[in-house]
Formats: sequence, structure tokens, C-alpha cells
Amino acid sequence: MRATQFFLNTLKEAPADAEIVSHQLMLRAGMIKRLAGGIYTYMPVGLRSIRKVENIVREEMNRAGALELLMPAVQPAELWQESGRWEKYGPELLRLKDRHDREFVIGPTHEEVITDVVRKEVKSYRQLPLNLYQIQTKFRDEIRPRFGVMRGREFVMKDAYSFDRTQEAALKTYDVMYDAYRRIFTRLGLNFRAVNADTGSIGGNRSHEFHVIADTGEDAIAYCPTSDYAANVELAEALCTAQRPAAGKAMEKVHTPGNSTCEAVASQLGLPLSATVKSVVFANEWQEQGQDKNETKAVKKVQILLALVRGDHEVNDIKLGKLAGVQELRLATEAEIVAAFGTKPGYLGPVGVGADVRVVADHSVAAMGDFVCGANSADFHYAGVNWGRDLPEPESADIRNVVEGDASPDGKGVLAMCRGIEVGHVFYLGTKYSEALQAKFLEENGKPAVIEMGCYGIGVTRILGAAIEQNFDDRGIVWPLSIAPFEVVLCPIGYKKSEEVKLHADKLYQQLKDAGVDVMLDDRDERPGVMFADWELIGVPLRVTLGDRGLKEGKVEFQSRDGKVEKRDVEVGKIFEQLRVELASRQISL
Amino acid sequence: MRATQFFLNTLKEAPADAEIVSHQLMLRAGMIKRLAGGIYTYMPVGLRSIRKVENIVREEMNRAGALELLMPAVQPAELWQESGRWEKYGPELLRLKDRHDREFVIGPTHEEVITDVVRKEVKSYRQLPLNLYQIQTKFRDEIRPRFGVMRGREFVMKDAYSFDRTQEAALKTYDVMYDAYRRIFTRLGLNFRAVNADTGSIGGNRSHEFHVIADTGEDAIAYCPTSDYAANVELAEALCTAQRPAAGKAMEKVHTPGNSTCEAVASQLGLPLSATVKSVVFANEWQEQGQDKNETKAVKKVQILLALVRGDHEVNDIKLGKLAGVQELRLATEAEIVAAFGTKPGYLGPVGVGADVRVVADHSVAAMGDFVCGANSADFHYAGVNWGRDLPEPESADIRNVVEGDASPDGKGVLAMCRGIEVGHVFYLGTKYSEALQAKFLEENGKPAVIEMGCYGIGVTRILGAAIEQNFDDRGIVWPLSIAPFEVVLCPIGYKKSEEVKLHADKLYQQLKDAGVDVMLDDRDERPGVMFADWELIGVPLRVTLGDRGLKEGKVEFQSRDGKVEKRDVEVGKIFEQLRVELASRQISL
Repeated sequence: MRATQFFLNTLKEAPADAEIVSHQLMLRAGMIKRLAGGIYTYMPVGLRSIRKVENIVREEMNRAGALELLMPAVQPAELWQESGRWEKYGPELLRLKDRHDREFVIGPTHEEVITDVVRKEVKSYRQLPLNLYQIQTKFRDEIRPRFGVMRGREFVMKDAYSFDRTQEAALKTYDVMYDAYRRIFTRLGLNFRAVNADTGSIGGNRSHEFHVIADTGEDAIAYCPTSDYAANVELAEALCTAQRPAAGKAMEKVHTPGNSTCEAVASQLGLPLSATVKSVVFANEWQEQGQDKNETKAVKKVQILLALVRGDHEVNDIKLGKLAGVQELRLATEAEIVAAFGTKPGYLGPVGVGADVRVVADHSVAAMGDFVCGANSADFHYAGVNWGRDLPEPESADIRNVVEGDASPDGKGVLAMCRGIEVGHVFYLGTKYSEALQAKFLEENGKPAVIEMGCYGIGVTRILGAAIEQNFDDRGIVWPLSIAPFEVVLCPIGYKKSEEVKLHADKLYQQLKDAGVDVMLDDRDERPGVMFADWELIGVPLRVTLGDRGLKEGKVEFQSRDGKVEKRDVEVGKIFEQLRVELASRQISL
Repeated sequence: MRATQFFLNTLKEAPADAEIVSHQLMLRAGMIKRLAGGIYTYMPVGLRSIRKVENIVREEMNRAGALELLMPAVQPAELWQESGRWEKYGPELLRLKDRHDREFVIGPTHEEVITDVVRKEVKSYRQLPLNLYQIQTKFRDEIRPRFGVMRGREFVMKDAYSFDRTQEAALKTYDVMYDAYRRIFTRLGLNFRAVNADTGSIGGNRSHEFHVIADTGEDAIAYCPTSDYAANVELAEALCTAQRPAAGKAMEKVHTPGNSTCEAVASQLGLPLSATVKSVVFANEWQEQGQDKNETKAVKKVQILLALVRGDHEVNDIKLGKLAGVQELRLATEAEIVAAFGTKPGYLGPVGVGADVRVVADHSVAAMGDFVCGANSADFHYAGVNWGRDLPEPESADIRNVVEGDASPDGKGVLAMCRGIEVGHVFYLGTKYSEALQAKFLEENGKPAVIEMGCYGIGVTRILGAAIEQNFDDRGIVWPLSIAPFEVVLCPIGYKKSEEVKLHADKLYQQLKDAGVDVMLDDRDERPGVMFADWELIGVPLRVTLGDRGLKEGKVEFQSRDGKVEKRDVEVGKIFEQLRVELASRQISL
């Protein structure tokens, strides 16, 4: 491609509403153009990268035995009513009426449609397994679209849906998709992690998110650098390997005036933060049928729950919410706290609390001896507290967030932390949709059985944003080779003035094109500084500069955007070979 | 691809609501699956053909210098209000509101969006010309969707939009697109015609439709077999090369009781139908400001217009509507006819009509002598009528449909008739949208100028239907090689029973795959009849059958779907070469 025949429109400044770097750089590089909130046109330079992502996704999906089809964007409401999501999905589901006043949605996902296709087409076990996917434009009516393609309303996704005879077969398909996803993100040249997103609910909902690792990621991830383990921080299991020590001290009430935090108390007492216990009070609410005068009516019940974690830990309310008996959980009000503990927050603790308070200690707190906690009396703490002696043995559970250095739940090392951007999701669905839509098949024995399903999504346009969040510098984007809009850019200085420059530039351009390289020849009449700034912003991996001065000595200038090859002179006769070597070293084959 | 790893679901019968053959065959071949009225899922076998169409379209658009981008489906109402189409487009424009109650449409076309992109991006003449296209899913809320992909609501289109500095440059771009379209439809292997759709209005709106020729086509096309001329019958110019003969007879009133048609009168008088004149009465309506008592108000005016064509011709009311002075045209009511002619229809004619009736004779009628026409008196006609002698010279114009055998307007032969299905359209837009949306650029002289536009559409999914309407037989689809879902199918008989058959089938399959042939191996455990019926229905161009009996003699069976190669035995060692030859002979290179 020649620059004069392409459409380039880089910007010096990004619009003020572009908050994150990928959004700013995609706008500045002319990859996307805003049409409305969360709705973008993918300009030629942006679409080139999208197509490269799509092709890698398509190749790996086909390789894994999935078949491509294309489902409609506009879907009849009836299917969503049948699955129950017409009510449940909320306002992100864009609903509309056609000219005959029939209700439709613009599909944010296609479980209903594909299950409808399959229930009509599949009659026999002989037609299974089946794995169908599409690369298609979706719409999700985000309340506050932002971050460009990261949280847009209209976006391109690859979504696959698998259909199997048994749970065992479905979980095998899940593994095949998991592997395909690893191959896809590896080939895309991204640093990523497959994150366990298993919600642990009964029935074994298996689920992994694929995250591109980036400091700016929305999600905190705990991972084990010496194994494959990775999980969302809020879902990662916190192991407690410590044994409770024998009591060494007597319990004493300490005056801790004004020191209402664990940090302050530890500091006053000269103890590590991990010797203190943090008390957080929640209210667990539910409704019961009660008798009020002569009427039976719903009565709201509240139980106070005291959660205890070590001073250096944080309570995880998702885990807390999953405890047996917990219905609706919220932080207790100050009034509730005063009523239950006789004092305001800051000096709360488990010693001497009434039987109506449910005390739950994190495993690591249950393993403590001689610990420090609030004394339920303003400006006082207890020190040297020991379970079973100073207060009853607690209910013990995993109710905290993991922290760096925790043992990895797979037993293969210790946890580290990073941030990630979710770009893919594999999900074992079981019979959730096939049951609702009655997608059945006849088993070998002639009996009907419900199809086992899985679904597998990749945010195609989102990948661009995530790749940029992971790969940029102050000059612009630093694309991995596999998804760069162009692989090589040739910058001739004085293309329209120097015969010599034009000759060599044209020759190298043709040579690279013939070799199947995705090459851009900047044949505009621009100053070198303008050319360099444009291509560094757009992030083309390899650059060759051809000028009269160098060519006199038979040299061109070569450098790579990723910093691996710093600006250097290369003999004109060797540049093609050099480019091939550098391209090959950046090509990812599996 | 192996059949056991593919998703095949052919049907013996098409649903009753599939009215036309392409719809029936696409459903029966399992190419599409209905989701709602006019909304289809493209199943794997269908999507394969769509992708092949898309690739050819993409290659030729790129070759012609157009740049691919991707615009959103969901578009803000404001742009449509700005162009004026929010009001004009009617109920085919699907309108909707997002969660914030803002109005949007699902784009049936993208003139507004692309003009918005360009007006924001293009500032200078240096950025022009520009030709941008996309292959994208559109929605048009047809009142009565039918004929499968031929008149669906959601469909895939390629739409391109060009932007030029001057009308001259825009018309040059138009020609480039016209050529690209010829290449595209040629490469698709379709019998097509570029049909002049120039509406002839002042300003030179240049426009061509590309039609796939098929007996079942919706549009009647007049074309010249000895030249490139083709036009919609209703738009084709009817030339009159005849000279008016001198009067040979005296006018006489003939009693023609009950013979109220030209056919009946010609038969009674023993004259050719072309010696008679047909009278059709229209009413031309408009509004004028009139004085009614003391008020000025709009007054409806009606003028009676008598259109005269030869007895063997048909009046063309589109042409009639374009005559100077004609506003709103409709057929006259019987009351209006009786008031103007003193008699009921059946015996009307131009002789002796009042000055308030506008008489318009088709050129061919103006060139007649001694003709027959109604006498404005029940059961009577005039014969031997001559212009200038028996009645005044008429206003003469082209107001009829062309007929087979008419002179071609390009002077290069005579016209023939066929029917076609519109699959593409190239249109010179001028400044219609750029003016409305103020898409301007700075000329070299520093002055702002309005951009000249063109638009160019291809109905990607519609092409499948059109190709089938042109290429089918009683067994199913007969795909052109270029867009067949598979190029070759191997049908081994007893693949799972005979080692010999499996060995040869697998070997040939691998050989063809290695050679880049799109080959299907039917490795199902089906009877030959079932296999043959499936692949003939699906329309795979070349078929090889491998069976034990033939292989014993070193032979396999070979045939082509298009009937050019009838079933024949080929030596096993020569089949690969034979396939290559047959594939090559069906490949279209330009």
C-alpha cells in the first residue's frame, strides 16, 4: 500500500473525553472515528488490525473443529422471553419494535438464537457434538459507554456455542476451546493469563476469563508465576497453612486512645500488623412470614455478622456472601453497631459479644494466638487474646482477599498480583439454555436427552484496545507484528525529488510485496519528522528510511518500533534479508 | 472438509411459504435458516458461498483503489434529520430509542454516516479523491419480506462511497466503479447485464443497475444483443425511425359494434394491429392559489390528457409523468372521460376533441397515416385518419414502452427482452448529501467547494439467490465454481467398510487439499443415493465417486454438476489431473 493511495489522518491531540491511553491512541492514529457514544466507525487503518485479529481467531476456531455461521443482529423478543432473559437482562438489552409493532432486540449475545437453530436442526445423537461460531457485530446499551472500544456499545465479537451429548463430552469440548484460546492469544502476540472464573457453585460451572495483562486493566488478578494458576483476586482461594500457636500471654486490656485502626494500634504496641485482628460488621437480612395482629405478612429479619480478618488483610464480601445462611449482606449501620457492641466502630472486637452476633473468623485469624483486637470500649483494645480461652472457638472460613505472597491454591508456589483486561471468556453452560428452550436430541437408546452446552466469547474489537494498553510508549502504539496494520513501513526522504531514493524505495517495496509482506510505502511529500511521527504513532513494527545521503554510501537506516533494533545503518543490498530475519523473529508459530 | 465434521442438514421439501426456487433451494440445501420474517441465519454451507462472494468483491474493490472500513449499524437520528431522510425514508427505516431515549436507526444504507466521517476528516483537495467501502449487515424493514435472501430485512451489502473534487473527476470514478462491477460479476461466473438506469433528469444523474439475467427476475430489461445497451423496459428510449406516409385514404366513420379494443377493430377491418391507435385518458392534477369569496386558498386544477400509442404498444406512465407541465398523473375517472369526450371508454379518439384536452401522441403514432381510432361515439371508429388533415398536428413524445424488435437507442441493432434480478447499483450522486451535510474542502485556490459524491452497492447475500435463480435444475443448485460452497466432492461408497475405498478416497482428498482445492469428502455412512442427492441439491460443481467395483479395474467415476462432463469412468491415476483441468476450465481470470 502506498500512503498517497491510503487514508491517513493522524491527530496531534486526542479529544478530551478520551480517558485512557488506548482510546487516545486509537483516535490519534486514525483507527476509529466516533459516531455516537460508544459507537465507532473503524477506519481503514483500524480495520486492517481487526481483520488480522479475526483471521487468527478464525483459523484457530476452524482448527479446533468449530464451524462458522452468521446469525442475525435483530432477534425476535419471543426467544428472549422463552429463555427468561427478556426480563432479567436489564436496560443493556436494546429493545425495539418493527413496523408491525412486533418486539425485537439487537443481540448483545446469541445463546437464544443458536439454541433455537440447534433445537430445530438436531434430532439425533448422531448429529452431536457440534460447535458453531460467528464473528459478528453486537450491541450492548451500556449506561456509560467509555474507553473507546474497551466499553463500547456496538462491537465485534467472536462467539462460539458448543453442543454435546453429555457433561463429560461438554467438558472435553471446554478444554479444546480453552486450548484454542491459549493458541489465539499467543499468536496475537499478547501477554495474557487464563484466569479461573469458576464461581464455585454446585454443578461445577467451569469458567475461565482470558485477560491481557496491563497496568491499566480493570481487573485485579492473582496468579502463580511458577504455575498456570490465575484467578480474579475476589475469587482466588486464600489458603491458610499456618498452625495456631499455643497461648503465650495473658489477655490484657490496653489503653489505645485515638488509635482506632489496626495500623495505629500495632504501631503503639510495637507489633506487626499481622498480629492484629480487624473487625468489620455486616448486617445479614432476610424476610420471614410473621404474624402481625391478625395478618400474616412478610417480616424483615436482621442478623449482625462480625467478620474478622488479620490487620494486613481485606474482607472479601463476595466470599462472605456465599456463607451458609447469608441472604442479603450489607455493611451494618452505626446504630446497629452501637446496639450490638455498645460502642462505635474503631474499637470493636469478638471478645464478649452476645450470642445473637454471628462471629466469622478468616482461617488466618482462627490460626492466630496472642492477638490484638478491639475491646468494644472506646479507646481500648485487648492484647494477648487467645481462642478457646478468652472467647469461644470461632466459625472459621475463607473470607478475605488473597495478597501477594499467599500460597497458591494449586500448591505450586506463592501468589503474585497483576491487573488485566478481559478479552475472552470460556464458559460451561450445562443445560441452562437447552432446558429453557427445550433443545433435546434422541439418545442411542431412543430416549430424549437435553443437550449440554458451552459458550466461548472473544471481544475482537476490544483486543485492539487491550493490545495497546499493553504495548505503547510516549510516541504511540507498539503493535505486536501479528496485528499491526502494516508490518513494515518504508520512509523515503525526498521520494518526489530524488531519482535515486525513488528507485531504491520502489524496488524494496516491490520486493517486499512479492514476498507477501504487508508493507507501506510513504510516498507522500512530507518531512521526515512528520513521516516518523505518523508511523510511530500508528505503531508499525519495522521501519526503513531511505535518503540520498545514506544511499551515496550504499546504506539505508533500519529500526524496529519495539526497541529491539535501535536505529542502525544497513547495506542496501542486505536490507531485504535483514527485514526477513526481523519479521521471522517476530512471527509466532505454534 | 469431511462431511462428518461439517454440519449438513438437507431437506426433502421446502416449507410452503418459500415461493421462489432460490428460496426453496437455499432452505432445502441448509444454507439459510429462518429466524423471523426476512431474517435468516446463514448456516455453515451458506456462509461459505457468502465469503467467496465477499472475497471477490473485496479484491476488485481494492484493485480499483477503494479502501475498506466498517461503519456502525446503529446510527443517530440527527444525521438522518440533517439529510432530510428522517422524514422521507418511510417505515422501511427501522427507528429505535436507546436507554436514554435518544433516537437511532438501524442503517439501511450509509450515505449519512460516511458523509459525516468525510466532512470531519477531509479538509483539503489534497485528501481527494477518496473511495471508501464496507461489507456490512444492513436492515430494511420491508413491509412484506419474502423470497428468502432476495427481499429480506437483514442482509449483507457491500456499499462504497466516492468523494471527488469535481463532477468530471466523480464521473471518472463512476466509470472505474462500473468497470470494477463488470469484473466482479464476471468473476462470480454470472450471466449479467449492466442496465442503464439513468432517470434522465437534468443534472446528469448517471446510474446503472447490474442485473443477473433470470427468467424469474422481477425486472423487465430491454437490451441490444449486438451492443452493450441495456435498460429497464420502463426507462428504455423508444425510437421512431419511420417517416409519416402521405395520406392515401379519406377518413370514414365505421360501425364497429361491440369492438371496443384495438385487436377487435383491427380484426374486423382486416388491418394489422399496428394500423390502429389506442387512446388512454389521464388526469393531470395540480394546485393553484385561487380566490374563493374573500379568501385566498389552494384550488385543485385538473387537465385531461389523451395519450395515444399504437395498438400494439403500451403507454409508459413514467415517461408520461416526465412531460413538461405534468404534475400528478392518474388515470381519468369514467365521469371525467364522459365529460371530456361525450362517450364512455372503448371508442375514444383524438378527432374533434376540445381544446381543453391535451393530446399527446407517441412518436410512432405521429408517424402514422391512414390510421384507425375511436370516433368518440359508442360502437363507432374512424378509419383513414391523417394528421394535419382530419385533426391538428399532435404534440409528439416518447410515451410508450419499448418492444422486442425496436431499434436500439445506441443505433447498434434492435432490442431484445429479458428479465433480471438487480444485484448491484452504481450511482453518481453529485452533491445531494455533501450539500445537505455541508461536506466541503478547500480548493487549491483556498476557496471552499462542495464534495462530489457517488455511491455503489452490491447485495452480497442477494447474489446467492440470484445465482441460484439463474443456475438450477430439478435436482438442485448448479453453482458457478467461484461461489460454490465446495469445489469438488468425493463420494466413497462404503468408506467405513472397504479399506481400498478409504485408502483411495483419503489419498485423493489429501492431494486436492494440498493443491488448495476446496474439497469435501463425504465420509458419512450413507447410501450412494443419499450422498448424490445431497451434493446435487447443494450444487457442488465436480463429483468423484469411488467404489470397490470400479477400483478393482482401477477406475473411479467422474461427473460435473453443470452437465458439461457426463458420468464417466476415469483411471484412478488420472483423476487428480482431470479434476485440475476441469477446475481450470471453470476458473474465470480477467
